[in-house]
Amino acid sequence: MKVAILLFDGITALDAIGPYEVFAATQKCEVKFVAKQKGIIRLDSKMGYLHADYSFSEITSADILVVPGCSPPNYKNPMNDEETLNWIRKINNTSKWTTSVCNGSLILSAAGLLKGAVATCHWGSFDLLQSLGTIPTDERVVRHEKIVTSAGVSSGIDMALQLVAWEFGEDISKGVQLILEYDPQPPFDTGSIKKAPASLVEKMKKSLQEISNKDS
Amino acid sequence: MKVAILLFDGITALDAIGPYEVFAATQKCEVKFVAKQKGIIRLDSKMGYLHADYSFSEITSADILVVPGCSPPNYKNPMNDEETLNWIRKINNTSKWTTSVCNGSLILSAAGLLKGAVATCHWGSFDLLQSLGTIPTDERVVRHEKIVTSAGVSSGIDMALQLVAWEFGEDISKGVQLILEYDPQPPFDTGSIKKAPASLVEKMKKSLQEISNKDS
Repeated sequence: MKVAILLFDGITALDAIGPYEVFAATQKCEVKFVAKQKGIIRLDSKMGYLHADYSFSEITSADILVVPGCSPPNYKNPMNDEETLNWIRKINNTSKWTTSVCNGSLILSAAGLLKGAVATCHWGSFDLLQSLGTIPTDERVVRHEKIVTSAGVSSGIDMALQLVAWEFGEDISKGVQLILEYDPQPPFDTGSIKKAPASLVEKMKKSLQEISNKDS
Repeated sequence: MKVAILLFDGITALDAIGPYEVFAATQKCEVKFVAKQKGIIRLDSKMGYLHADYSFSEITSADILVVPGCSPPNYKNPMNDEETLNWIRKINNTSKWTTSVCNGSLILSAAGLLKGAVATCHWGSFDLLQSLGTIPTDERVVRHEKIVTSAGVSSGIDMALQLVAWEFGEDISKGVQLILEYDPQPPFDTGSIKKAPASLVEKMKKSLQEISNKDS
């Protein structure tokens, strides 16, 4: 099974590496990191890089496409970049599954793949997703036909495990979960806007806005 | 707060990127990826790379040191590499916290930092950890003085959230959890050897052994 993971300047690393690790652990997937140009790809934090081993021109099909997201100030780039959107449309024409993590669904929506569909993204971007003609929902993993979107950053692990179960069967997915020892025990229970106190949600909204203003 | 994350050939990507994403999201940490030589660093799957922006000679201290792990066939490299062990000892002499993810604790133990201590690692490596003079436990995040070890691969996210709570306070950790939308919802509950069926554990043990044999 060929998996293509899109990389772009300003990407959130865990959005890409969460699903990568799940698909790699199946021992049934050939995972390729793809970007407009191959080479190092700067992270949204500006404190490191991922690496694209393939350029758009080298990858013309995939069984599974993964579109990661990025921090608010940066998602404008791939959303407004026709070359990236065209590559996504081309791969989507060949894919069995097209997926996104975090604000990656904004890019899928900008590419015209989620018009009128129900999908999810980072909780901080529901309004923007809606403005693109997609109906936001706060579920963690959302399937619309062959398109599977997932919530913020860490949700790509859950999304990929779910997709592995659909594609390769439950036993493979369970085995991968054990290999990755994915037995989450966060010290608190504030990982969604439904669970976090309203005051914390407001504070983090402001923090995201500040990052956005600083970078724009 | 200066965070140094060790990279090495054969590393498991999520071991490094999980904690990176947590520390980056605090907006209070300067995170640096460090390896023997700077440049691209091959992953254990051989299907991609991370990138070291700094070499050992450039980083001589850190407030938080993160030592990730790798698949069975590869962990021999950093465990037996005196240059790497010396760098770890040097940074540990300056650190407020020294941490590991997955089989990274084998490297810490090989560096002499966990003699007689209780620590954890990937469930597949308990015997090896014990053979190095460290007492294995199957808890997810284990603190021994300033050394914090965590279980397999994905546990680095929980470890880093816990450490952020200790170092910066619970509110910061809760906010990071919300920003990363870490509200885990894996489709199954087989992420630890305590929860997975015994038959699955045996099957995955064999799978790890096969990978090890193939690569050695």
